[in-house]
Amino acid sequence: MENLENVYAYIDANSRDFVETLIQLVRQPSISAKGEGIQECAELVEKLMKETGLTTRIIQLEEGNPVVYGEIRSGETDKTLLFYDHYDVQPPDPIEQWISGPFSGEIREGKIYGRGASDNKGNLVSRLKAVESYLKTVGDVPVNVKFVVDGEEEIGSPHLKQVINENKELFSADAVIWEFGGTDREGRPCLYLGLKGILSVELRVEGAVKDVHSANAPLVPNPAWRLVWMLNAIKNEKEEILIEGFYDNVKAPSKEELHYIEEIPFDEEEWRRELGLKEFLLKRSGKEALKALLCNPSCTINGIVSGYTGAGSKTIVPRTAMAKLDFRLVPNQTPTEIFGKLVNHLRNSGFKDVKITKYGSTDPAKTPVNDKFVQTVAKTAEKAYGKKAVIYPISPGSGPMHLFKNAYGYPIVSVGCSHPEANVHAPNENLEIESFIKGTKFIALLLQDFSRT
Amino acid sequence: MENLENVYAYIDANSRDFVETLIQLVRQPSISAKGEGIQECAELVEKLMKETGLTTRIIQLEEGNPVVYGEIRSGETDKTLLFYDHYDVQPPDPIEQWISGPFSGEIREGKIYGRGASDNKGNLVSRLKAVESYLKTVGDVPVNVKFVVDGEEEIGSPHLKQVINENKELFSADAVIWEFGGTDREGRPCLYLGLKGILSVELRVEGAVKDVHSANAPLVPNPAWRLVWMLNAIKNEKEEILIEGFYDNVKAPSKEELHYIEEIPFDEEEWRRELGLKEFLLKRSGKEALKALLCNPSCTINGIVSGYTGAGSKTIVPRTAMAKLDFRLVPNQTPTEIFGKLVNHLRNSGFKDVKITKYGSTDPAKTPVNDKFVQTVAKTAEKAYGKKAVIYPISPGSGPMHLFKNAYGYPIVSVGCSHPEANVHAPNENLEIESFIKGTKFIALLLQDFSRT
Repeated sequence: MENLENVYAYIDANSRDFVETLIQLVRQPSISAKGEGIQECAELVEKLMKETGLTTRIIQLEEGNPVVYGEIRSGETDKTLLFYDHYDVQPPDPIEQWISGPFSGEIREGKIYGRGASDNKGNLVSRLKAVESYLKTVGDVPVNVKFVVDGEEEIGSPHLKQVINENKELFSADAVIWEFGGTDREGRPCLYLGLKGILSVELRVEGAVKDVHSANAPLVPNPAWRLVWMLNAIKNEKEEILIEGFYDNVKAPSKEELHYIEEIPFDEEEWRRELGLKEFLLKRSGKEALKALLCNPSCTINGIVSGYTGAGSKTIVPRTAMAKLDFRLVPNQTPTEIFGKLVNHLRNSGFKDVKITKYGSTDPAKTPVNDKFVQTVAKTAEKAYGKKAVIYPISPGSGPMHLFKNAYGYPIVSVGCSHPEANVHAPNENLEIESFIKGTKFIALLLQDFSRT
Repeated sequence: MENLENVYAYIDANSRDFVETLIQLVRQPSISAKGEGIQECAELVEKLMKETGLTTRIIQLEEGNPVVYGEIRSGETDKTLLFYDHYDVQPPDPIEQWISGPFSGEIREGKIYGRGASDNKGNLVSRLKAVESYLKTVGDVPVNVKFVVDGEEEIGSPHLKQVINENKELFSADAVIWEFGGTDREGRPCLYLGLKGILSVELRVEGAVKDVHSANAPLVPNPAWRLVWMLNAIKNEKEEILIEGFYDNVKAPSKEELHYIEEIPFDEEEWRRELGLKEFLLKRSGKEALKALLCNPSCTINGIVSGYTGAGSKTIVPRTAMAKLDFRLVPNQTPTEIFGKLVNHLRNSGFKDVKITKYGSTDPAKTPVNDKFVQTVAKTAEKAYGKKAVIYPISPGSGPMHLFKNAYGYPIVSVGCSHPEANVHAPNENLEIESFIKGTKFIALLLQDFSRT
């Protein structure tokens, strides 16, 4: 416990410097969707790692953004904890809604504002600073630590699978801390043990070679109608997905998982107010709503367009129609399986006149709630925050967790130093300095606790 | 017949002047959709009427474009023929596809090019010149002639009903010649005895107050899905319109009408080639296709939009969704009736979450094929063109014919001096000078023939 006191004292004494480091990283744009500032940000991350005391490597495939790797070995144990983070950020649009510039790193009322402050630069810096705090006080780390810092997380990590394949040994570890997390409105630390998978597709139907006067509607095929009927054959009003075999591989949550879901606080009224909704879909509420959110696969129309969409009316049969859909998948569904079933379903339902394009996809991934590492992280979180941890057996979001899970099988838990009003992916993204520092102490404690398991 | 020889001789001798008059009118833009040149064009039409020898009146409501009215009484009969025309034109877009300026009135290879050359300035001038030819040769017209020249036909004639109500006596007549028509590819004159009705609506569904991350799809209502299911409840894949009572007032075509439809030449392959279609909707072909085109009501998605429609994918639940629809109606359906049934149908099908906006609407209108006036026009057309007339009991298009039909009950037949490659409503609209002159003689003959019935 002596070590830890010194470590905590170092964190408190240097918190202003930690904030400066984070602001420096936030000020470096790194928008993967637009290819802005990627190389510069990767180099800055490597520099920060080196200053921390890590051995580093930039992993650069022929295509794709660099992955920054860093590691430090412990003199005390062979155990290894790996951190997965990412230095790329979402585009800052709509820019006009930011109070200060999205890459200004301005501090207002105890919060650092900027794109990436919470997602994910804050977590990355917090973890580096936890390592630094050991090295500057004890002179060693309690466990071996590895960092894998992705440059394409916000665009679906299209090259990460190849990076893992080509660096299999480098990323081996005993357990992984994933990139995101924080405390809830009551200050309880949250742990996420998995991610849903996702499959994004585009459906396109063509009609005549040009828009045709709608007086000719009895003779001219209308791609907008075809698309409507196609979509209707994919999901019905009861939210049942009608693709043959869609639910075949859905593994129902275990008794333990359901128990943990029961324990999750869920402020549904606040959320409905924020969304301006009188009620949730299918009037779901309470634990039923939360269970659906976490455990149900879904099929969403993200966008649809055809023909004339301006003011007033224009009497045409449109020449083309397009819809974008995503499927959120749960264990043990896979996007490859579901894409094949979608193609077959549309063909078998008589919709041969559709062109289906596959966009991004990730598999679902999950670490069992009774895994020893989960219990370690939960206990450490309770000690660090003074409140019992909230355990999400799965998060409704998606990410490349399955790539690590499939390649190594190690337990993966997602925790972080964020807070509920962080505006992740939205204007005025921010990170509370207090949460940032508290989260750094939590990671420091976790390094010690994990070394003792 | 003596009179007519002189009239025809006058037409031949003055055809160059007739063309000059039409070019003068084409060069005056009159785009009702944009309010361009309307007043100037109305004044020019009145001037041309006065030069012809008509008594004129400009009918100007508090709102709307002026209607130009002109008349001349015959010394020989009390019979009156009314011409319905319009001086307004469609916008010339896309302008870059015109070979000469849309308002240049350039002559190339025997055709006058310009927006409105065929629709409807050519017909208007042809009719005025037929009257002029009598006055300049015989010194009288065979029948009383009235002209009602609309300034809002291309935008749905929103004020014409009021104009008629306030000028009931002025527009009385024994029969009406409607604004459009011409010869087909074989040079046969075509008669149109009616128009379908139309009802244009917009459906809008709202969800959350903002786009929401699609990870939350199990809880957030998706207006795009609601709209898809709503549309699916309006029409099915067999093209059956599912609105309760939609077909109740459909009056099947009579035996005589079917007989005339059988006689209509229908170059379907040429049309499919032009549209790039392997087959028509529901594989319709031949007389069945033509009958569907002329006699079936239809429901068309003109446009639909929701959410993200750009490149790649964006994982959102959209906050709003909108579709534009038109219904083409046949006798004895009315837009008022169908709008009410649509509203009830959606409500009764559980779609209370839709906002329905009504745009333009017109009733269908039809003159019976066995009406004496129809037979007169058909016989005259055969004499004028040397080929048997093709009679369309109804045209698939729409227009304000019902306003006159409902108010006066007189027979209305649409004929004109256009030709198949006139590019009406499209770039490079034109009128063949030969068709224009032939059509003028046809109208001159019709004035005489009608006076003798």
